[in-house]
Amino acid sequence: MDIRYMQEALKEARKAYKKKEIPIGCVIVYNDKIIARAHNLREGKQNSLYHAEVLAINKACKKLKSWRLDMCDLYVTLEPCAMCSGAILQSKVKNVYFGAYDKKAGMAGSRFDMFSIRFNYDPIVCGGVLEEECSTLIKDFFKKLRKEK
Amino acid sequence: MDIRYMQEALKEARKAYKKKEIPIGCVIVYNDKIIARAHNLREGKQNSLYHAEVLAINKACKKLKSWRLDMCDLYVTLEPCAMCSGAILQSKVKNVYFGAYDKKAGMAGSRFDMFSIRFNYDPIVCGGVLEEECSTLIKDFFKKLRKEK
Repeated sequence: MDIRYMQEALKEARKAYKKKEIPIGCVIVYNDKIIARAHNLREGKQNSLYHAEVLAINKACKKLKSWRLDMCDLYVTLEPCAMCSGAILQSKVKNVYFGAYDKKAGMAGSRFDMFSIRFNYDPIVCGGVLEEECSTLIKDFFKKLRKEK
Repeated sequence: MDIRYMQEALKEARKAYKKKEIPIGCVIVYNDKIIARAHNLREGKQNSLYHAEVLAINKACKKLKSWRLDMCDLYVTLEPCAMCSGAILQSKVKNVYFGAYDKKAGMAGSRFDMFSIRFNYDPIVCGGVLEEECSTLIKDFFKKLRKEK
C-alpha cells in the first residue's frame, strides 16, 4: 500500500466535486505506475454505471488489453458499492484500498461483505486509508448541496 | 412478464455462442419496446465489465438519457452475478427476469441474494423463465468447449 496513490484518488475525487458529482475518485496501479484514473460521473453523464471504480476498471482493461487485473491494485476514496465490489471481483484485482467507510451502501464490510463470499479468488481489502480526508470531502459536498437547495 | 422478451434475450445469447463467448443475452424493455439488447463479450473484448447486463444497461441509460431505469424491465438468460446485480440495483430496474440459475455465482438467490439487502428500492426478481432453453445453451457451450480442448 502506498499512500500517494490514495492522494491521487483524492485528486480525482476533487475533480468530481467541481463537476457537482458526489466526490469519489479511483486509481488503478500496475507495476508501481498508475494505469487508470477516474472519478464519479453518474449525474453529468446520466449513467448508472459511471462510478469511479467501474470507469477506472474499464480503462485498465483497455490499457492492459486484458479482463484480468490480477496484478493490479485499486485505490478508491469510498468503500465500494455492490456494483463496484462485483466489478472488482470480476476483474480479480489483487489488492483493494478504500478511504471512507459507507455505512449505508458499503459492500466491503459496512453494509455487507461481498468479499467474504469466496469466488475462487482472494483479494486483500483494506479500508480507512486517508479516511479523514476522504470522508470530509464527501461530507462537505453534501453540506454545500443542502445549503444550495 | 412477457416470454417473447426472454426469447429475444436468447437470440442475443446465441450471438455470444457464435463468437465463442459464454452464451448469455439480455434485453431491456421500456413501454413494451426493447430499448437495449446485448450479449456477453468478455473474452473477445478482454473487458471484465462486458457482461450482457452491463452492456444492456449502458445502452439503455444512453437511450433514455437517464441513469434511472425504474420504468424498465430487464430480461437475462442467466442469473446475474455480483457485478450485474449491483448494476441492476444502481439503475433501479423495475422488474428483473432471468432464465437459468447459477449455483456458483448467481447473486439473485442461488449463491447469495443481493436483492434481499434493502437499498431504498424494491425490484421484483423472478428466475426460471425459459430455464430449460437458457441452461441447455450454456451446457452445450461448455460441452463443446471441453471437446475442443
